[in-house]
Amino acid sequence: MDALETLFTRRSIRKYTEQPVADADVETMLRAAMLAPSANNRQPWQFIVVRERERLKAVAGMHPYGEMAAQAQLAIIVCGEAAEPGYWIQDCAAATENLLLAARALGIGSVWCGLHPREERKTPFKECFNIPDGIEPFAMVVLGYPAQPFSEAGKRVQPAKIHRERW
Amino acid sequence: MDALETLFTRRSIRKYTEQPVADADVETMLRAAMLAPSANNRQPWQFIVVRERERLKAVAGMHPYGEMAAQAQLAIIVCGEAAEPGYWIQDCAAATENLLLAARALGIGSVWCGLHPREERKTPFKECFNIPDGIEPFAMVVLGYPAQPFSEAGKRVQPAKIHRERW
Repeated sequence: MDALETLFTRRSIRKYTEQPVADADVETMLRAAMLAPSANNRQPWQFIVVRERERLKAVAGMHPYGEMAAQAQLAIIVCGEAAEPGYWIQDCAAATENLLLAARALGIGSVWCGLHPREERKTPFKECFNIPDGIEPFAMVVLGYPAQPFSEAGKRVQPAKIHRERW
Repeated sequence: MDALETLFTRRSIRKYTEQPVADADVETMLRAAMLAPSANNRQPWQFIVVRERERLKAVAGMHPYGEMAAQAQLAIIVCGEAAEPGYWIQDCAAATENLLLAARALGIGSVWCGLHPREERKTPFKECFNIPDGIEPFAMVVLGYPAQPFSEAGKRVQPAKIHRERW
């Protein structure tokens, strides 16, 4: 799929069909995530792939906007190696965005459910997934083939947000 | 250009030719950036496009790893509407990553120079660009047609960073 079309037609997809997502496509999405840029090339990310239905139902109840996970084909929990404040948040966000774009390129729908910096959202994920100290649950990405169109009208470019040479 | 190839071959490009970057391509990159996902669709980003040679030379001296800006065709300063702590950092990172990927798709090289959260880096940008209170300089993206290959061997996927069902 064309890269610019991928960038322009990615949107949050919250309804999925029952079509399985192939393991090879999951690996492609994770590869894209891990090829994101990071400060000093530290690559401070980790991923938990959730496929089991009972566990998907559990995470659906652990996030205030995560109910779609119960019917999804999988979820990927992006975690950050948060040893220092610095850049790990931005690095994990770039990896998450790459993951969403690879999904779109493969025809797979996704939605980014924020965890960090909300402690009340992160705590149940830490417990459910046995996440060690020093690792922070950053975001949950829920994935599946879309039961709604990618191409629906969405956000628009706002020229007022573009400044020339100075503010 | 193919979306997955774009994701897999984006890398930091720090040497540029003198080939101009068309205004239409700058708009395409900004459009891609503004179509990134954001928490509650707040779109908390702003962009300053820097084309003037004297100003590019100035920013080259304002960032410890920004010297390539002096010879670049342009730089884009990504800024965040930082009214609340929340998600603006991740939202701006997703927009920045979209910008880098759109550049790669157009054959344009880019490098992401971090500003936030380092106050000593942000202060000269705030002053140089007259950035108002409540807006934070987030990152400088330096851009130009590459004088080095995109395809050089880079990072690799690390299977140890992938966990199944739980940590």
